[in-house]
Order: sequence, then C-alpha cells, then structure tokens
Amino acid sequence: MDIQNVQFASRFNGLSGSAIREIFKLLARPGMLSFAGGNPAEDALPDAEVAEIARRVLTEDGKRILQYGATEGYPPFLEAMYPYVKENFGFDAAPGTILPTTGSTQAMNLLCAALIEPGDAIILEDPTFLGNMQCMKLYQAKLVPVGSDEDGMDVDELEEKIKAYHPKLIYTIPTFQNPTGRTLSLERRRRVAELAEQYGVVVAEDDPYHDLRYAGEALPTIKSLDQSGWVVFMGSFSKVISPGLRVGFLAAEPGLLRKCVIAKQSFDLHTGLLNQAICAAYITEGLLQPHIERICVSYRRQLDTMLEGLSRLSAIEWYTKPQGGLFIFASLKAGMDALKLLPQAVDRGVAYVPGTHFYAEGGHESTLRLNFSKCTPEEIRRGMELLDLAFRA
Amino acid sequence: MDIQNVQFASRFNGLSGSAIREIFKLLARPGMLSFAGGNPAEDALPDAEVAEIARRVLTEDGKRILQYGATEGYPPFLEAMYPYVKENFGFDAAPGTILPTTGSTQAMNLLCAALIEPGDAIILEDPTFLGNMQCMKLYQAKLVPVGSDEDGMDVDELEEKIKAYHPKLIYTIPTFQNPTGRTLSLERRRRVAELAEQYGVVVAEDDPYHDLRYAGEALPTIKSLDQSGWVVFMGSFSKVISPGLRVGFLAAEPGLLRKCVIAKQSFDLHTGLLNQAICAAYITEGLLQPHIERICVSYRRQLDTMLEGLSRLSAIEWYTKPQGGLFIFASLKAGMDALKLLPQAVDRGVAYVPGTHFYAEGGHESTLRLNFSKCTPEEIRRGMELLDLAFRA
Repeated sequence: MDIQNVQFASRFNGLSGSAIREIFKLLARPGMLSFAGGNPAEDALPDAEVAEIARRVLTEDGKRILQYGATEGYPPFLEAMYPYVKENFGFDAAPGTILPTTGSTQAMNLLCAALIEPGDAIILEDPTFLGNMQCMKLYQAKLVPVGSDEDGMDVDELEEKIKAYHPKLIYTIPTFQNPTGRTLSLERRRRVAELAEQYGVVVAEDDPYHDLRYAGEALPTIKSLDQSGWVVFMGSFSKVISPGLRVGFLAAEPGLLRKCVIAKQSFDLHTGLLNQAICAAYITEGLLQPHIERICVSYRRQLDTMLEGLSRLSAIEWYTKPQGGLFIFASLKAGMDALKLLPQAVDRGVAYVPGTHFYAEGGHESTLRLNFSKCTPEEIRRGMELLDLAFRA
Repeated sequence: MDIQNVQFASRFNGLSGSAIREIFKLLARPGMLSFAGGNPAEDALPDAEVAEIARRVLTEDGKRILQYGATEGYPPFLEAMYPYVKENFGFDAAPGTILPTTGSTQAMNLLCAALIEPGDAIILEDPTFLGNMQCMKLYQAKLVPVGSDEDGMDVDELEEKIKAYHPKLIYTIPTFQNPTGRTLSLERRRRVAELAEQYGVVVAEDDPYHDLRYAGEALPTIKSLDQSGWVVFMGSFSKVISPGLRVGFLAAEPGLLRKCVIAKQSFDLHTGLLNQAICAAYITEGLLQPHIERICVSYRRQLDTMLEGLSRLSAIEWYTKPQGGLFIFASLKAGMDALKLLPQAVDRGVAYVPGTHFYAEGGHESTLRLNFSKCTPEEIRRGMELLDLAFRA
C-alpha cells in the first residue's frame, strides 16, 4: 500500500501548523526588519555567562547531569525554585508542587493531557497566544473566547461563559498579554481566583512576561490570591534567560501535578538536566535579577520608540500602551486588512503578525501584533516608516 | 469547590505512573546493588568532553543556541545527522525526514499523536518496553501483544494479528530488545518490512541499543530494508552519549514527519538547541565511535560476568544470552514469583525489575529483567550471590 494512504488521527483535522511560524520562514531575507516574532533581543541572551555556567555545572555534577533523572526534576533546580517562586511570584512552592517542563509550552500540553477530553470547553482570552490555542485544538477542546479590554479579560463575561459552557480549564496570560500587552487589573485577578473556586474550574495562569515591566507597579499573581488550589501557574525562563534552553515550570496542587508528572513521564521522561542545572545556577548565583534589570532598560526604550512611531501612523486607528512585555496590539482603520497588507509590508522590508490569527474564531482583520524586542530603536523608527508607506500604498 | 473534586481526563484511567520508576526510588539506599535500571554506567558518561563541548558551542554559536529555534531542528544537528544515519543505520536521510526529539520517548509520543485515536490497535512485542506502553495507554490505544522467541517477534503471529486487529502501528525494538535482549533475525526483519507495506501499517522501529554490540555481526535496520515509507525509525543518544541530555530523533517519510512536527510544535516547540548542538559536535568531531568502542569493552565484560553468575543460580529456569544491549531476561523455576520475591532481594541489597511489568497483559510472574551496565563485574558477582540467597530463602 502507498504510504500516502496513511490515515492520520482526527486531532489534526483543520490544523496545518502555526501560521506564525510559517511567517517566520519569510523573515530569513537579509535586512528584513521583524516586528513579527516574540524573540528576546540578541543582547538579552547571556551567551558568555551560560557558556561558563554550562562548563562549570558539568564539571561539578556532570555524572548526575548526563544520567537519567527523575521526571519530578533535577534536585538543585527544585531547590532553587522554591525561594525564587515565593519571592518572585508570591506563592508558596513546596516539594510536589513544582514540575520543570520543556518550556512552558509543555506545561500547557500536560494540563490538557490531565484535564481535557475531546469536546471539553476551554475558556481563553480573545485574542490570545496562538501556540497554546493550537495545543488545545490538538486535544480537540472546544475553545470559548472571552473578550478583553484595557484591564484584561472581561470577568463578567467570563462568569457567564463558565455557567454556559462548564469549562474544564480557563487559560489566561494576565500580565503584558500576548498579543495585546494588556494586564489584568488587581480587582479582576481577585475575581478570577474567586470564580475558579466558586465553580470548580482550573485556571491556568501563564506568566512569562511577569518580570519584563518597564513602568508602573507589579501586581500580585492570580495564584498568590488563590488559596483553593484551583489556580495553577505556568512559568518560563524563555523571556528572561533563554528560549533555546526550553525550561519552564508548572506550579500546581499536588494531586493535579501528579497527573502531569505521569503524562510527562510518557511524553519526554524528563526535561534535560543540563538545561535545568543552567537555570538553577543562573538563579542561585544571583545573575537573574541584574540581567532582567539590564534588559528592561533596553526593552523600555524600544517600547517607547515604537509607541511614538505608532502615534504618527495615519493608518492606525488604535493601539495598546503596555507597561511591559514584548508586544503592542494595534488596529488599522476600518476596512483595512492587516493580513492582506502583510505582503506589501514584507516587500518593503518589514514584517508583523496579522491579529486575526490570535482570535479563536478569526475575524478582526484590521488588527496586527507588533513586537519591539528584536529591533534597535533606530530599526524600529525605520520599520515604522516602512509600515507607514505600506499601509498608505 | 474543593480541588480534590477536579475531574481528570479518562486517558489516566488505570494508569498510576511507571512501576519501574517507583522501584527506582527504593534504590536510593546506600550500597544497594541495582540490576533494575537501564542506566548507562557512570564511566560511559563523557562528562569532561561534554563540559568542554558545551562551553565551545556556546562560545561559537551561543546567540543562535540560546534563541528560539525551528521545531524542525537546529541546522548543525540536522547536517550531522544525514551522514551519521546513512552510515550507522543504513538508510537515506534527507531534509524533511529527520526530526530531533526530546529523547526518543518523545518520538513515540509524536507517533501516537499523529496516528492513534482511542481504541486504535497497536501491536507490540510481548514483553516490551514499559515506558512506551504507558504512552500508548495515555492515547487510549488497544495494546495487542505478539509473542517472541530467541529470534525476536513471531512474524507469523504478527501477520495474523494484523489481519485480526487492523493496527495503526506496530512497535518493535529489533536489536537487543528491552527487556529480553533478543535480536530480530534478518529474515524476520525483511518480513516485518514486507508486512508493513502489504497491509499499510506504520512500523515504529525503536533502536536505541543498536551500537551496543559485544559479539556477532550487525544486522541491517528494518528501515533500511523498506522502500515503501511505512517503516519509521526512532533513534536515541541516551545509551551512547547521555540520557540526561534528552536527545533522540525520528526518521520518517515527509508526510508523516510533518504531522509529528505540527504535534511537537504544540508539545514543546523544539528540543533544546544546546542539547542538539552537543550531540552534533560529539558526532562531527569524531568522538562518538571511539567512545562506543570504549564502553562496549566494559559492557561486554559486565554481560559475560552476569551470564556466568546466572548459570550458577539454582532458582533460575532459563535466561536469554544477548550479544549486546543492556538487559538479560530470565525466569525463575515454575511456581516462583519474581514480584513477590523482590522485597527479599531488596532486603539483601540487590534489585531487579519483575518481568510481569513488561507484558501488556501481565502474567509471567516467574520472569525478571536484569541490567548489567550500572555495576562493576565485582558488584555483579556479589549481586548474583545475594540473588541466589534471596531466591533460595
């Protein structure tokens, strides 16, 4: 029989891979200015420090690092995480409540494995992070979007949708959200935690941009406001140390975390120990906080430059004004289509991601996501001029 | 609502985590001799070389290694794999046919994601590797065991079961199988490749012990005997470089591999780039082959020592005599139960894995799996004496 007749599982129906990652392939062209990715700046990647740390941890604990490890985590990583999580995210992390994951992407995968049957509802912000939507679709979940405004997810609509759809999971990026850059207000954070307990729904709080704050005051995590255990927390070192290392973590109540451990055992056995060891050393040696402060200085300048550029783009109807993170979300004037205009922008040498990809049910063709972390202020100014030309053509 | 009321997905029904990995936790006792794991020897882990390589690759290509990468793989890793796969496993590997995975454990996961709906049949050897059985159970596959003898899987029974169960996947470890150490004969390898094409069933050839041969002649991989594309190949660097790095690969026909890429994108985005870079450098710098030759010298001595010890154990009815790999499979005399005897062995300071765990439908209580790679010849001799005492008590 011809291999072309192979029958794939129905979980792929309607899935064709991330639209964003396909756009990324267009960006290889030399000189292309990219506002499309969510990549840290090159200067934000501590390659010299990590080279030295990698050599050192392998020299000091190489036999353990190269051997099989426990799914539950490399002990020095877990030891580093308990105080780090308490100090940085404001909730208690004890043994049995923290699981290292192969990027926080895998945390989403494990939560879906633990909770989602085909047809189960997952509530998410509209718009939201495309990658995790694709994971939910692979688990054949029913995606139920809830609108958001400048203060993040609309919590009244959230309660209505909980009552109407009985979701197994609520997925939220409360801080400097991808793609909008919006931050959920304190009042709404409390309400989300209350709704989780009231209705018995797991809330997955995805907080990778937490430390990338350039203005304003930090807000408590939703998980720190929850005593019930219904809120779980997805953390990541991708935006503050390195995405290529693929180290994130899931913090959850022990019963739920145990199911995630069992799934992870079958999915990749454990996260690379060298990767865990590098992140642990980076934290315990006190390198993380100064590194974050350093990169925030650059990112703040890049954000301000892009906001200023946007204020001068006549084709732009509105745009968000984040206090941190990596993204600004914007809308072209009524009738303009950011997806159709993308080739014109790429032809002129600048790229973005059409906003429609981030909406669970599509639409919103006038919107676009702009990333400011990969370009220098000068490149941002030039890119905004190129966008202006493309949008006015 | 109390978090204890959370409802888990039905894929966990009847699953409680790997029995083996629970046994491993008993092994922390100081002085315990372990024949239970499948871990490389400490001496087989090239920590000093990897420390130097890690530092060097990060120094030379750190900005790329620490950044996001393509799901499809780190380019230098892929470039290293094409000639390595051809030379070592005897089949052509072109772009679009090789995907780095987070350990070969993930290759199984991706194949299940691509192919398996709840209730779909997967044929596997009886007994076989427990970890991948657990993965198949998470995908709610129906596990259909096929018996094996000294020449590996019974291919006549295989054909009968294909006709009876219409499987989506056939899973085999043809070389120095886990847990039996048996190797599928050349004639049967040809037959498996033919059956795959004849009936249109994907065969997953899992070959992590391929290079750990201590006697006899290497046989061609099943994939090298297949021109149809129905045979896919799961490779691993866990047994020849390091399991802690979590680097394996999947080789498959482009259409099938593409589905695995889409699934991987959602599951962990990509395998750590540092991990890929280390394996690539280890291969391209010519370190792998001498390293394998070195570790095979030790492993051969350990295997021979254990076989000699087994020949003197009066409670042993039969045992396999592998030419490579990490495991010997044995049976106690009729009426003896290796699961019930395990605590007695552990009390005396030696551990093994009861064979029943490796059978899809349990039973075979007299059998046990013995690993020889983690103990010195002297420890093996002592451990065998302790087993003799435990089994005769």
